[in-house]
Amino acid sequence: MLTVEEALAEVIKEARPLPPAERSLLDSRGCLLAENVAADADQPPFDKSLVDGYAVRISDLTSANRRLKIGETILAGQTPTRRLGPYEAAVIMTGAPLPPEADAVVMHEHTRFVHEDVVVDAPEVRAGQNILRRGRICRQGELLLQSGNRLSPTSLGLLASVGRTRVRVIPRPTLAILPTGDELVEPAQVPGPGQIRNSNAVMLEALAVDHIAFSRVFPIAPDEPGELHRIVQECLVFDVLLVTGGVSAGQRDLVPAALERSGVRQVFHKVRMKPGKPLWFGIGPQRGEQPGTLVFGLPGNPASTLVGFLVFVAPALQVLAGRSGPVPAELSARLDFEFLHRGDRATYRPARWVEPPSGTGTSGPGVIEILDWAGSADLVGMARADGFVILGAGDRVFQAGEIVRFLPLR
Amino acid sequence: MLTVEEALAEVIKEARPLPPAERSLLDSRGCLLAENVAADADQPPFDKSLVDGYAVRISDLTSANRRLKIGETILAGQTPTRRLGPYEAAVIMTGAPLPPEADAVVMHEHTRFVHEDVVVDAPEVRAGQNILRRGRICRQGELLLQSGNRLSPTSLGLLASVGRTRVRVIPRPTLAILPTGDELVEPAQVPGPGQIRNSNAVMLEALAVDHIAFSRVFPIAPDEPGELHRIVQECLVFDVLLVTGGVSAGQRDLVPAALERSGVRQVFHKVRMKPGKPLWFGIGPQRGEQPGTLVFGLPGNPASTLVGFLVFVAPALQVLAGRSGPVPAELSARLDFEFLHRGDRATYRPARWVEPPSGTGTSGPGVIEILDWAGSADLVGMARADGFVILGAGDRVFQAGEIVRFLPLR
Repeated sequence: MLTVEEALAEVIKEARPLPPAERSLLDSRGCLLAENVAADADQPPFDKSLVDGYAVRISDLTSANRRLKIGETILAGQTPTRRLGPYEAAVIMTGAPLPPEADAVVMHEHTRFVHEDVVVDAPEVRAGQNILRRGRICRQGELLLQSGNRLSPTSLGLLASVGRTRVRVIPRPTLAILPTGDELVEPAQVPGPGQIRNSNAVMLEALAVDHIAFSRVFPIAPDEPGELHRIVQECLVFDVLLVTGGVSAGQRDLVPAALERSGVRQVFHKVRMKPGKPLWFGIGPQRGEQPGTLVFGLPGNPASTLVGFLVFVAPALQVLAGRSGPVPAELSARLDFEFLHRGDRATYRPARWVEPPSGTGTSGPGVIEILDWAGSADLVGMARADGFVILGAGDRVFQAGEIVRFLPLR
Repeated sequence: MLTVEEALAEVIKEARPLPPAERSLLDSRGCLLAENVAADADQPPFDKSLVDGYAVRISDLTSANRRLKIGETILAGQTPTRRLGPYEAAVIMTGAPLPPEADAVVMHEHTRFVHEDVVVDAPEVRAGQNILRRGRICRQGELLLQSGNRLSPTSLGLLASVGRTRVRVIPRPTLAILPTGDELVEPAQVPGPGQIRNSNAVMLEALAVDHIAFSRVFPIAPDEPGELHRIVQECLVFDVLLVTGGVSAGQRDLVPAALERSGVRQVFHKVRMKPGKPLWFGIGPQRGEQPGTLVFGLPGNPASTLVGFLVFVAPALQVLAGRSGPVPAELSARLDFEFLHRGDRATYRPARWVEPPSGTGTSGPGVIEILDWAGSADLVGMARADGFVILGAGDRVFQAGEIVRFLPLR
């Protein structure tokens, strides 16, 4: 049986960044750019006033004369109709283009209005003052954003400013969630004897939402091989498929069988971890130009589903989106009390912050408390947790104050 | 003129958590719960097997006899049809209910199959072994989630497990974005002389997306009072309205006038900050049971819009969503080189990580570099930034290695 590290390495080896595709700017947020983007024009495209005031010709202003005639008014979005006349100042607004011959702008606050003329009180007016020169921000054809850049809100603004409404990126993956099991009923239903509600689908949907383009949650699939096979094939148009339930030996391996019948190649089944041991991973058939679907069979109990998502699915989603650092986002944390751990598998136990780490990044690790819980079906205990403490295989006492691995739920 | 701190205090004072409303579970993710949620039934609702194996009656297993007849098979989702007969074991799967009379489950791995009977090899079988007792996770009527809890993916799973598909929460706010200005054209258009593309709308949309329910970006509004007034009224059905442009004195205060004509009460206009000084803030008329729209008039240049969002809008969105800690999420960072700052206002300069703070929270602050840029219209410079360094009012030299305030773009 693979260790967690070995299994994760298999997942990372099989996952590949998705082929580049064109997306709207908003859908591209956080994505990796898959093209170089150059400036379509000089920015600014004209000499531009940085303030509200008067565009002047410096040589008109001497120590003897500080008074100028008021010429035309130039608002942002307008174009000057003529050059400055001799001893003339144009009224100019922030962002408006300078009239020809003007070589400085005097702020409104440094002027006075005298008999329909303007008097410049500013003692010193320098050439270029309060002007943003054409091309100062960038030149036409200049490379602005390089392929491989992560698109921040500001980069999206920059793309819009050069005329882009769509852009080539490594897109976010699409996700199918397929709950299986005859014991499951949808949350709106009252479970009959021996039945439980499907709580995993919405949990997975909420966990994945920031990583993906969109998800589709399928209705609960029955433990019936033909039907399961039919539904699995529908799911294989997605980039990632999460099947919950039906992977432990006791459930007659229905899901692995249905997956293999649909051409999904098994990469591994079972991982030396607790909870989550029966986890199944495989790759669907190539979809035209698109790589095969990454298929995770997550054991159906809520803790296995959750830990399986955090440890394997989240890193895979990162790799598909072209991001590096595919390891799960573990933190170091200090244990509040001594804890006796027994078990031959890496064990994930719900824990919560007693003292969270400070957000300013100036202090040390936070302190966690391992929660009492009733095992992997205990959603009540898990809902109180901020994450999972990771206890390595082998019996041992973890000391109070000891630094341990902590997998935050965010 | 208000300082940034005074202006933010005004915003926080006027913003109130939105009235509770019912939302779907997925739309409630990250929201504050606005009701108490109790268990609708015992969890588990029956004594349940934790493993695949055999349900047995301990008193049947003596040192002399380890062999039992195999009775019925109970799968997850099924109900036992009868009690265990004498010297009988039921085949039972993980999650399946125990038959009456059974008081332990022996794992499949600790048994052998002999002539249609099962032999229990496990030397010691304890009462309750591998059984999750009815009500062990929670009792019917027990309080599971308290009003005021933030809804994590696990809490959503817990809500689904007790039959909830909708829940009362402080909902995410809705957002209108209204770009104004005759000098603006939409990104798909080629700007004429004196025109620039609207890059702010998509930037604001991307900045807000994680904080809100949904946003609507309005078409560019012209600098025409009647038309502007008409459009503003359409925008006042949203919880928050961001108007860009038209708030600086040079732009003839068109936006404040249109807002006030629509019944928006001005709280402040102008803040002692750079960029962003002409920022306008007010409150729209009460909307039935809903509070008035929070209206921000953001100066139109990209840096003012961005800083205005980070410093005032993001905290306001947090307050509307019922979250505490409304101050912008500042970090401490170390300056890489000496920097001479001049100015009589708090100044926000684009900066980037030279050494980012470590994600593990075990080390000190990161190191930032203040970027060279061409001023508040320079989206190229801003797109290279990881955030803004905040330099207080007054001329002074910031030393290399000095700890400064840093407002990350995330």
